Amino acid sequence: MSELSVDHLLGIKYLNKKDIELIFETADHFKEVINRSIKKVPTLRDITIANIFFENSTRTRLSFELAEKRLSADVVNFSAAQSSVKKGETLIDTVNNILSMKVDMVVMRHPNPGAGIFLSKHVKAAIVNAGDGAHEHPTQALLDSFSIREKLGDVGGKNVVIVGDILHSRVALSNIFALKLQGANVKVCGPRTLIPKHIESLGVTVETDLRKALQWCDVANMLRVQNERMDISYFPSTREYTQQFGVNKELLDSLDKQIVIMHPGPINRGVEITSDVADSDQSIILHQVENGVAVRMAVLYLLASKIK
Amino acid sequence: MSELSVDHLLGIKYLNKKDIELIFETADHFKEVINRSIKKVPTLRDITIANIFFENSTRTRLSFELAEKRLSADVVNFSAAQSSVKKGETLIDTVNNILSMKVDMVVMRHPNPGAGIFLSKHVKAAIVNAGDGAHEHPTQALLDSFSIREKLGDVGGKNVVIVGDILHSRVALSNIFALKLQGANVKVCGPRTLIPKHIESLGVTVETDLRKALQWCDVANMLRVQNERMDISYFPSTREYTQQFGVNKELLDSLDKQIVIMHPGPINRGVEITSDVADSDQSIILHQVENGVAVRMAVLYLLASKIK
Amino acid sequence: MSELSVDHLLGIKYLNKKDIELIFETADHFKEVINRSIKKVPTLRDITIANIFFENSTRTRLSFELAEKRLSADVVNFSAAQSSVKKGETLIDTVNNILSMKVDMVVMRHPNPGAGIFLSKHVKAAIVNAGDGAHEHPTQALLDSFSIREKLGDVGGKNVVIVGDILHSRVALSNIFALKLQGANVKVCGPRTLIPKHIESLGVTVETDLRKALQWCDVANMLRVQNERMDISYFPSTREYTQQFGVNKELLDSLDKQIVIMHPGPINRGVEITSDVADSDQSIILHQVENGVAVRMAVLYLLASKIK
Repeated sequence: MSELSVDHLLGIKYLNKKDIELIFETADHFKEVINRSIKKVPTLRDITIANIFFENSTRTRLSFELAEKRLSADVVNFSAAQSSVKKGETLIDTVNNILSMKVDMVVMRHPNPGAGIFLSKHVKAAIVNAGDGAHEHPTQALLDSFSIREKLGDVGGKNVVIVGDILHSRVALSNIFALKLQGANVKVCGPRTLIPKHIESLGVTVETDLRKALQWCDVANMLRVQNERMDISYFPSTREYTQQFGVNKELLDSLDKQIVIMHPGPINRGVEITSDVADSDQSIILHQVENGVAVRMAVLYLLASKIK
Repeated sequence: MSELSVDHLLGIKYLNKKDIELIFETADHFKEVINRSIKKVPTLRDITIANIFFENSTRTRLSFELAEKRLSADVVNFSAAQSSVKKGETLIDTVNNILSMKVDMVVMRHPNPGAGIFLSKHVKAAIVNAGDGAHEHPTQALLDSFSIREKLGDVGGKNVVIVGDILHSRVALSNIFALKLQGANVKVCGPRTLIPKHIESLGVTVETDLRKALQWCDVANMLRVQNERMDISYFPSTREYTQQFGVNKELLDSLDKQIVIMHPGPINRGVEITSDVADSDQSIILHQVENGVAVRMAVLYLLASKIK
Repeated sequence: MSELSVDHLLGIKYLNKKDIELIFETADHFKEVINRSIKKVPTLRDITIANIFFENSTRTRLSFELAEKRLSADVVNFSAAQSSVKKGETLIDTVNNILSMKVDMVVMRHPNPGAGIFLSKHVKAAIVNAGDGAHEHPTQALLDSFSIREKLGDVGGKNVVIVGDILHSRVALSNIFALKLQGANVKVCGPRTLIPKHIESLGVTVETDLRKALQWCDVANMLRVQNERMDISYFPSTREYTQQFGVNKELLDSLDKQIVIMHPGPINRGVEITSDVADSDQSIILHQVENGVAVRMAVLYLLASKIK
């Protein structure tokens, strides 16, 4: 039987195309199981998973927890607010302690880029990166591609634009890796100051005119604006941002084709996209959330099968 | 088989008398099961329930969680402190996201009156209101009536006084609806400024003299004083409140009958009631808590049976 | 079959030597089960355990939760931040409410010394003290002794030094009780101001020279420095502390024997011990953590068997 080429999911950067295909086929299976209203499969009954979140998160933590529970894993949650992290314990001590309790897998979100990579070199457990600073958020990119594939068929050859603060976005970076690996054409679009220099070296093109970008694409992935960053000098104001890079129904209807709208959530309604766009038929935002559970089940299942 | 007339438990206002009877008979059954030390029934094994608490709560969250686990439901907890709510996400986005993960029921506490009603119109899941602002707290009122029925038999015809801040209390409002529906006679008692105008239109009478109210009643439900409100001008000081509306053992013993003392908790000992009253034979406060689990099991079970 | 002499685990002070032996033999069994990769035994399937933490804790809460889940108990977590405690509810009301929901066991951490003892007199549930102020932390002492026994065989006759702030440490006090009960020789070592007067009455000796203490011992248990206390006048500065009472590799290698290094965690690397000491072959710190789960399974199992 085929298996992943990696022992951890640290970033899309470390996967190959076959890995992604395997994850998607496995997710297809789990999605079918869920849709038949089977709430639980006994697959990971002997596995203990620790969800370690050093940053707050609604949907990602919940999505992982549901995926884990549907696989019948034992789940322990650990969030920074309740942790020794406040007492100044180092990351490796925290995680080593958790692993000494015979935890098999760790799902971790951490503000430092590379935190998961560091961990995977020092501890004996499968690590799933649930977001590490501005670096990667691989399960988000996988569920995004899975959702495009579900809506439009093969991701290969599709035109995808990622709109927003590309510079600080782990969602953007993981998506670029995933989309390129699958043969999609990728543009990034956003304020000049929020697009990394040399991003073309990743095989993407830059377009600062939103209308042109939308006109070109099959799919627009609208990144969340981090309001908390908007007071820094090189950021535009929220109003400026919305005027130049927000999508409303008028703009959407003025295009000469039906593009697909995605958003990793949580949405700032009226900023990145208006409510009528978020709730329109062209939006697959809630499918993304739904697919998140199936994709995460697939990732956990495939990594667990390499442990034993 | 009989079933509830509603698909959600949004408030007692939306129930009829038969609904309450059905809930109580079902709760009788679950209470018997618990008392036989059967900790778990497989009833809701295929149901996933999300507890979404936008306000802190000890006993209500715990009581629901125990009820859910004893029905073998899969439980995910979500509290505002860990949530995207801080990031400005709208209620409907938060809940839609949770539901996209195939959650069947939502138990929600929210500071806004009507939050549950709003949700039930926009999402596909059974909603249980676990307290919405100053509006309703239906499971509290159900467990209160269930506890009266257990202690005194039929609630119909009994005299019940609700003492305290009626104006801001969802417990008071839900209790009034529940008690009237079952044919009880209801008085409210408290500082004039804390009794809503026109409350008589709900079929209750107002009594500002605590001794007279107690002398009249079979049951006194002593609401919790919200100390955090006590500095607002139209509130009495805690000391004034206790002098006029607090129950101590002397007062209780000076009545010419044995009334039943209830409290929704958490008690401010020495404010609404003294410790010797709270711990006396006339107090059924801990029975209320115990019954809460059985009543919530009944509500969840009956709503779940309408989903499938 | 043998059983514990107590119905609660409130402190090592209340145990006899046979209790400790029984706990260790039971923990041996559970450790073997875990090592055979059996993740769950159905032993406590009918038991509901509430973990009530009035103070933050990483490893202790997690360790108990894993122990409970591996015994198949139903677990509800309750932390002070989400609780009515903020609203001024008394401890006994909080716990009585929880118990009214038919909880069988309570694992409690509380800032007040004796909180568990108080509870055990007023509520009907088996209480496990998970740390009560500066009083006791019995499961920590049990896992510490269990780890010494695993490494060195019988604890009786061994020389153990406890280094650090003895005055404020529940870990120190519980360890002294446990070690003396098993016949170990115990020294305490630390700044004069942080060693309780009359501690010799517990059968231990005081040594303020760290090198001498280490030269004497088989095992050094290095307590965590509470940085938050270090600004109080009678405390040394962190730098002074480290110079006088910190262990680095040079010091360790300069001894004429291989002593065992323990630490209850979380470690302040570079303060109590340096990283190379923490990660050396002489350190059994991660074994302590691992053994914590097995020892707590044993305690919960043995107390539960007295309930039924």
